[in-house]
Amino acid sequence: MEPVRAADIEVLFFDVLGTVVDWRGSIADEVAAFLRRHEAPHVDAHAFADAWVGRYDAAIEPIRAGQRAFASLDTINMENLQACLAQFDLAPSRFSRSELETLNLAWHRLQPWPDSAAGIAQLKQRFIVAPLSDGHTRLLVDMARHAGLPWDMVFGADVSRSYKPTPDAYLRACELLDVPAQRAMLVAAHGYDLDAARSCGLRTAYVLREHAADPAKAGYRGAPEKWDYQAGSLTELAQLLARTA
Amino acid sequence: MEPVRAADIEVLFFDVLGTVVDWRGSIADEVAAFLRRHEAPHVDAHAFADAWVGRYDAAIEPIRAGQRAFASLDTINMENLQACLAQFDLAPSRFSRSELETLNLAWHRLQPWPDSAAGIAQLKQRFIVAPLSDGHTRLLVDMARHAGLPWDMVFGADVSRSYKPTPDAYLRACELLDVPAQRAMLVAAHGYDLDAARSCGLRTAYVLREHAADPAKAGYRGAPEKWDYQAGSLTELAQLLARTA
Repeated sequence: MEPVRAADIEVLFFDVLGTVVDWRGSIADEVAAFLRRHEAPHVDAHAFADAWVGRYDAAIEPIRAGQRAFASLDTINMENLQACLAQFDLAPSRFSRSELETLNLAWHRLQPWPDSAAGIAQLKQRFIVAPLSDGHTRLLVDMARHAGLPWDMVFGADVSRSYKPTPDAYLRACELLDVPAQRAMLVAAHGYDLDAARSCGLRTAYVLREHAADPAKAGYRGAPEKWDYQAGSLTELAQLLARTA
Repeated sequence: MEPVRAADIEVLFFDVLGTVVDWRGSIADEVAAFLRRHEAPHVDAHAFADAWVGRYDAAIEPIRAGQRAFASLDTINMENLQACLAQFDLAPSRFSRSELETLNLAWHRLQPWPDSAAGIAQLKQRFIVAPLSDGHTRLLVDMARHAGLPWDMVFGADVSRSYKPTPDAYLRACELLDVPAQRAMLVAAHGYDLDAARSCGLRTAYVLREHAADPAKAGYRGAPEKWDYQAGSLTELAQLLARTA
């Protein structure tokens, strides 16, 4: 099968959490600072961060299943943060509401991988570039301003009120950019996300990110030959697409 | 009444057609080129452009009123273009569908006013900046890429499926940016738009643009003292806001 050529693609959608930003590392850094401030250095910040990030997928499953009304990641993350405090024997009463809200906003300040801003800028020269994320619009806008990500448009889960891999998340974004699904490509570090995008007719580009996986989905790794493109970074993806022009 | 201070504003929404781009002049330029190509130089391009732009408001009124399902400006503009051809005694059969579609896409290539890109970039240093337009997402994204407008997020009418001044157009944008209406400000060259935004609780900044008015609304001019800010350009607005910081 001939690979899809760059000339046949108009739009690149990007998974964000894990693909564009290092969510686990970023959360662990902010958790470590939080624990130091609150004199709880005995708690392992990385274990806490993994527990927090690890609750994410199960927490939004009732929304995907239609059993819970749409709620943004600010709400979901705060619920999960409070559950993690209990899990690590940290009494929630030790922390003021505003301190917890500040920590919760760590998700708006996730650090990009070193190649992300440059790779997106290179890809933007040829394609419309937009995140397609379970994060909500404000989270993604804050992150883009903080990390210098030059998106053309931002698709948060609150635009379609759908969490991936629900088909409507991909299809509503294609509709809003008035692009046929086969002329759009999802760039992601997670096979389940790419599988769902392909089921909706989109093209797929896998970006290998070590430690990017949702801990709840550890062990999933798609076969490389499954995807239209596979790259080790966003700048490498830009090079690969330039060669097919 | 004390003017609202910059520190109390998080988000600037921008009307686009007339406020950020010179829609009438841009359309007239493309119409003139189209008429020359098709050997119809006897038709006045500016009169044709004014007629085309002038049909816009009445054409979307049935959508605002709930009498017609949402349709994007690509659809509305094409209907109006065909009506204008008839109005100027140009038989639609003289032109291929693809030629008309190319002319219709002039709306995706509207030229910014000279201060627009610089003004938005200056305002972006302090505020989240986003268009809030009757244009649809793809039109606004194409325009931003073409004109170098560094938006943080793009709100087309197809996001809320509402045309201004329907309240949902303003309120859905505030909801998606998770901002209380009173911490958002609409920047617009049209009083009816600012009136509607204020009714929804937003702050208002009037930008004076000569010849920016929808011809169908000619003669409407709000009193300057009505608005939180009034400026002659987006760069002047940036200076005014910087002084209140």
